[in-house]
Amino acid sequence: MAWGQSAGNLKKDPQRLYVKEKDKKKFFKNFFMKLNAQWIVGFVDGEGCFHIGINKNQEMKLGVQVLPEFTVVQHEVDEQVLYALKAYFGCGVVRKNHGTRLSYRVRGHENLLHKILPFFEKHQLKTRKRVDFAKFRKVVLMMEKKEHLNSDGVEKIREIQKTMNSTTFLR
Amino acid sequence: MAWGQSAGNLKKDPQRLYVKEKDKKKFFKNFFMKLNAQWIVGFVDGEGCFHIGINKNQEMKLGVQVLPEFTVVQHEVDEQVLYALKAYFGCGVVRKNHGTRLSYRVRGHENLLHKILPFFEKHQLKTRKRVDFAKFRKVVLMMEKKEHLNSDGVEKIREIQKTMNSTTFLR
Repeated sequence: MAWGQSAGNLKKDPQRLYVKEKDKKKFFKNFFMKLNAQWIVGFVDGEGCFHIGINKNQEMKLGVQVLPEFTVVQHEVDEQVLYALKAYFGCGVVRKNHGTRLSYRVRGHENLLHKILPFFEKHQLKTRKRVDFAKFRKVVLMMEKKEHLNSDGVEKIREIQKTMNSTTFLR
Repeated sequence: MAWGQSAGNLKKDPQRLYVKEKDKKKFFKNFFMKLNAQWIVGFVDGEGCFHIGINKNQEMKLGVQVLPEFTVVQHEVDEQVLYALKAYFGCGVVRKNHGTRLSYRVRGHENLLHKILPFFEKHQLKTRKRVDFAKFRKVVLMMEKKEHLNSDGVEKIREIQKTMNSTTFLR
């Protein structure tokens, strides 16, 4: 039974698993925030980031790990938007960022390949982030072909990464 | 005849009003950027600002001028998005902001009342900017009733303004 239905009767049911008032509020907030694909594109055009991390990791054969991630950062008062994005894409996590900011973050290769890429292929971004997405997509597809596991591939990815999230390369 | 059709023939037509290459590029950019209402809501949820200015102006009876404005700021590489917003709303201006940033700005009372307000009443914002919009709307409607021309009204507007564009008042 959904919340809001016969709330009076529910109170009398001793079998009912009661939900804390705070969690209930959160449920309602998220429940009513159904996102529209075009809204998401607009919001990501404003607030989203496609980022390729290349981190030192001695456990990897080449000593580096390529880590693509898609993130959206918001002030914590808007956490419900981040949870709504998580629900829409069916992947990712919402985590503390800096100070009062939270981020929605998708990292896993399968999620990026099968959920994030197809969404932004179908629904094109309108700002310079379209260019960043195209580069991000290229790297994820290279990783699908395991090219990030040889030094030529990592070098290519490093070259792509250098030109991302900067306005210098868009003129 | 649209650009791109029989460009060769057009060149031979002495009656043709030739368009500078630069303007042509700009036309194409804007021409192909048709905005969707939900994309705009998402983008404004990210990048938009509803602001009430209360400026000293000795020409006004009360010595102050109430100046509501709706703005969207972008890096200049994305100027076409701002021009597309201007075309969509059919009002406002695109101006230099700070450094490499440009802003789309709507100020005129009639434009705010008849174009900006109805759009965001119909297409609800999803972040805390919904709260700012509600306050902004209240002020524009007060101005429609000329309440900004008496000191009580200005005081009320000042109180509303204080709580805007801040996360402190949303908890």
